[in-house]
Amino acid sequence: MGRTADYSKETCSIAATLEVVGDPWTLLILRDAFRGVRRFEQWQEALGVARNVLAARLKSLVEHGVLEQKLYSQRPPRNEYVLTAKGRALSPVLLTMSAWGDAHVYGDSGGPMQFMHGDHRFEPQLVCACCGKAPHGADLQMQLKDEPTPTVGEALARVKAA
Amino acid sequence: MGRTADYSKETCSIAATLEVVGDPWTLLILRDAFRGVRRFEQWQEALGVARNVLAARLKSLVEHGVLEQKLYSQRPPRNEYVLTAKGRALSPVLLTMSAWGDAHVYGDSGGPMQFMHGDHRFEPQLVCACCGKAPHGADLQMQLKDEPTPTVGEALARVKAA
Repeated sequence: MGRTADYSKETCSIAATLEVVGDPWTLLILRDAFRGVRRFEQWQEALGVARNVLAARLKSLVEHGVLEQKLYSQRPPRNEYVLTAKGRALSPVLLTMSAWGDAHVYGDSGGPMQFMHGDHRFEPQLVCACCGKAPHGADLQMQLKDEPTPTVGEALARVKAA
Repeated sequence: MGRTADYSKETCSIAATLEVVGDPWTLLILRDAFRGVRRFEQWQEALGVARNVLAARLKSLVEHGVLEQKLYSQRPPRNEYVLTAKGRALSPVLLTMSAWGDAHVYGDSGGPMQFMHGDHRFEPQLVCACCGKAPHGADLQMQLKDEPTPTVGEALARVKAA
């Protein structure tokens, strides 16, 4: 499935995240970065994605400050791509996606990978850092702020200019 | 940006989730469902997305068991779409995306919405349910299972057949 989506006119932090990482393949490129992939050819081999698509995605992630380029060869000049702190901060998005796919697509047999947290299996759970409790749906009340807020496109332009 | 992605040949729970909710607009459709949107015209107005795209996305979400249709008018017959338990289980994905967009796109000024958890602001944090601690990157070790695991396409075919 697919096709183009432009979230830049939305005023929403979810849309903001999707504008940065919502393109097809982008979250799998980041998944592989968390697994230690750093080089174009490694991604190309792992994902089988077209080279021009991969190049465009990596370029965009660098522009958004999610990945940064590091020269690993002088002759010929070759860059590798490593997660920035901003990129590493996406790990909860990937971990919650992984947990949902485990539970609701792979089901009882479990997914293809698991995470160990020290000596025990990592069981991701989203809690409220203020009170330590996991919210249930009805516990959370969404509030729109009173003051005007920039659109996704405006907010991203500020990030790039900063 | 966009274009097509086919994650069905991947063997990965993140790709599995993206195969269900990774299409452009789909996560914003679900965001609106969490806000109480249930009817085609409400989504169309809120998102401004092409009607054929919206119809295709809703159909796919129903087929995957993320939304279910409920008849709200007999004459003419009209359906609304409500989140299933499987759909509501996506809330951690949306909440972690929202938190990242708040922190890394909207930044200091904060995003356009916030969540209240009872009497305090909801601060999403991903912890390990086994030990209650928030993992740091290096704490988590990924393990691929030894036994063969179905691809995303195979796993989804089983879900649909069940």
